[in-house]
Amino acid sequence: MKESIFNALKTIVGSDYVLRSKEQTISYLYDEVEEAYRPKANTDSIVMKPKNTQEISKIMQIANKNKISVVVRGGATGLCGGCTPIEESIILSMERMNGILEIDRKNMVAVLEAGVTLMDLLEELEKYNDLSFPVHPGDEGAQMGGMAVTNAGGARAVRHGVMRKHIMGVEAVLPSGEILELGGKLVKNNAGYNLMQLLLGSEGTLAIVTKVVLRIYPKDCYSATMVAPFENFEDACQAVMDILQSGNLPLAVEYMDKHLFVGTAEMLGLEWQAKKGQADLLIILSEKSENQLYDACRQINSICEKNHSYETLYAGKEKEQQELLLIRSQHYEYIKENICDSFDMAVPVSEVSAFIKDLKMLVKEYATDTNVIAHIADGNVHNDILYLKDGSIPPYALELKNKMYDICFSYGGTITGEHGIGKIRVKDLILHKSSAELDLMRGIKKVFDPNNIMNPGTVI
Amino acid sequence: MKESIFNALKTIVGSDYVLRSKEQTISYLYDEVEEAYRPKANTDSIVMKPKNTQEISKIMQIANKNKISVVVRGGATGLCGGCTPIEESIILSMERMNGILEIDRKNMVAVLEAGVTLMDLLEELEKYNDLSFPVHPGDEGAQMGGMAVTNAGGARAVRHGVMRKHIMGVEAVLPSGEILELGGKLVKNNAGYNLMQLLLGSEGTLAIVTKVVLRIYPKDCYSATMVAPFENFEDACQAVMDILQSGNLPLAVEYMDKHLFVGTAEMLGLEWQAKKGQADLLIILSEKSENQLYDACRQINSICEKNHSYETLYAGKEKEQQELLLIRSQHYEYIKENICDSFDMAVPVSEVSAFIKDLKMLVKEYATDTNVIAHIADGNVHNDILYLKDGSIPPYALELKNKMYDICFSYGGTITGEHGIGKIRVKDLILHKSSAELDLMRGIKKVFDPNNIMNPGTVI
Repeated sequence: MKESIFNALKTIVGSDYVLRSKEQTISYLYDEVEEAYRPKANTDSIVMKPKNTQEISKIMQIANKNKISVVVRGGATGLCGGCTPIEESIILSMERMNGILEIDRKNMVAVLEAGVTLMDLLEELEKYNDLSFPVHPGDEGAQMGGMAVTNAGGARAVRHGVMRKHIMGVEAVLPSGEILELGGKLVKNNAGYNLMQLLLGSEGTLAIVTKVVLRIYPKDCYSATMVAPFENFEDACQAVMDILQSGNLPLAVEYMDKHLFVGTAEMLGLEWQAKKGQADLLIILSEKSENQLYDACRQINSICEKNHSYETLYAGKEKEQQELLLIRSQHYEYIKENICDSFDMAVPVSEVSAFIKDLKMLVKEYATDTNVIAHIADGNVHNDILYLKDGSIPPYALELKNKMYDICFSYGGTITGEHGIGKIRVKDLILHKSSAELDLMRGIKKVFDPNNIMNPGTVI
Repeated sequence: MKESIFNALKTIVGSDYVLRSKEQTISYLYDEVEEAYRPKANTDSIVMKPKNTQEISKIMQIANKNKISVVVRGGATGLCGGCTPIEESIILSMERMNGILEIDRKNMVAVLEAGVTLMDLLEELEKYNDLSFPVHPGDEGAQMGGMAVTNAGGARAVRHGVMRKHIMGVEAVLPSGEILELGGKLVKNNAGYNLMQLLLGSEGTLAIVTKVVLRIYPKDCYSATMVAPFENFEDACQAVMDILQSGNLPLAVEYMDKHLFVGTAEMLGLEWQAKKGQADLLIILSEKSENQLYDACRQINSICEKNHSYETLYAGKEKEQQELLLIRSQHYEYIKENICDSFDMAVPVSEVSAFIKDLKMLVKEYATDTNVIAHIADGNVHNDILYLKDGSIPPYALELKNKMYDICFSYGGTITGEHGIGKIRVKDLILHKSSAELDLMRGIKKVFDPNNIMNPGTVI
């Protein structure tokens, strides 16, 4: 980067908030994607930490004029290399834009700067005692701007849906530096094309979301966690469909291969209590009243029994519930050393059973295995390709991935349910989509970002 | 239209399904917008009734090559002139594409051709006894394609949100004739820019939606309707906010000026039972169990009382509930002769009280009145400008409208919550939006429809 441009940029945010040396910038280059497939970062990139929207607007004007790439970095909890700069870039770290601007109880809305983390928000809502925000992508270091532009999902989409359903408005800065106000504290809004919906899921390639108007909700005060063990995976899947059809809406319905529940528990010094069965569902319930919780437990239990579950295990106490959640959330620590690539496919709920069976059959052909973790009621399946025993990437990795995708497509699925395209799935997206759809995406990209400076190499 | 082109088009659908004479086409030119402001139709337009997506694709190829405008006509229940052709056009009437392709109970999804009416769908679901679809824009003649591309709302958005929340996939034909499959039976899907969300609300200006994949839901079996009369409108509004904050989610919370309830009831040979008070809320509850219904009634009643309501009136019996709904839904018949222009503004829920008060004050300055009907828990307010006593459009109509909008904007509102822009609000949209946002919309329009043949004069 030319010294004159660097100096102009530095003037905008102040020299304390620009990092240039490689020692300083190294921790701003990657997200959580597996090392084997993470994109190679351009280490000449600089980091800027703007304090407000106006500073971002000024930065963008310089970047756009000089065709310098801009990569926004939120909590960097992503799993597809979305925030890794592959060209010499300005990395906009949003950490200082962490203001909780308003908790508006009248409209049940929170107005947040993009750098507010999920943890910040949940802690703030905690003070009110009766407010909550449901979407939970797992890592509470995720920032609101990032959760918005990646349309984050997570385990609680069963009941509450993904981010898209909860965002009422955003403020965003265009590559030109112009500031857009889209939506607002409005339940209904049909005034023209919904550009906000287009930004949600655009992964920082169209504009920079600087502020989010988020719906918040009355807190459910009663929760319970159940483990329903089944001998057959098909029965477990049928139970999931029956639960959804019954009108019961659990907060989450999670599946992991049994050895993951057992092994992760062991790693944590705990014990997985469900000894019987080969396929366990972890079901989290959350209701407004004790009666409603009891009703839901009873109905779901009876649905599981009808589908041949073994005796269901209940955790009502806070500590027991947290232990179960810990086991679910820590599985990755248990297996991560063996994983070279991991996936985020989603299929219709009715196809999950056949889809996973086919995946397991497929990996046998390669004399390997795949771990399956699923937000099963969303049809969202995470599985993986394992390193060879010597720690190397298997020669069949690409072929196996493409065969997995083919199975997914044959069930009407998508290559990514919640993680997004980022940089690691750009080629996969091109396989997946028609040329007409890709052309439209490219056309839209050009309308927003004619100089292709916004997170180049991502999505499209 | 050149004879050769007409003949080529006729070959696609067969001569039985093309209308050309003005006697035949006259009933295909307008929607439900008030006559005073409805756009002038181009009566040289022809009507075509395709049977399937392939026919539409072929029609579009001819239209695009010859730069002939195409206006899609669904149920024509719109209120902003969206389906009126203002240039010589092909009017694509979707009436024959009315196939209910699949009711998929496993995934709780309906796959519908775009011409399926809401009534068709509800009748089909009725056969299953335990399935429902919640969005209800009032007129059951509305077609699914139209409800999708206008992102229809209605009274039940309080609980269930607008169409956008319920559509999982669409099939759409581009102006080029290419067919897109967007989304599918997928709860989560983050593969690239969400073009489907962009089509929802685009009012037939980007592509033709030919098929809709819609979420369907278990039916709530227990319902009740309450009327809560308040002396002060502010108290009624506070009660609405308190209900929403309490975690109770009524199916609908409706407000009309008292004289509309009373007058419409009288017109229908009924009696409006709430004699006391100046501001009545009509609250519809719908729950899974009798207990839950009872709980909700009790809690809402107590919230209303806390906000100084008079005694709440309950209708539990089917017939009584239907009478109340009839009064709510027929108000337009009662006032329509006096209305020259009507609006669809929406503001944050917290601002409804002040907004309506300001509107009422404003019209007094013009020695006129305005009827207020509101989906009040959505902040969505319908009001109107009245004809002068001699039946003419008042000379101040435009000025008054713009002042109403100014009030709306001052409360963070939008010019249209649910009806959309159509042709009657194009100029208003330009006042409302920044030039940066309008430029993006125009750019997107050009990407989809470079020859500007899709419903020209609408939205942008």
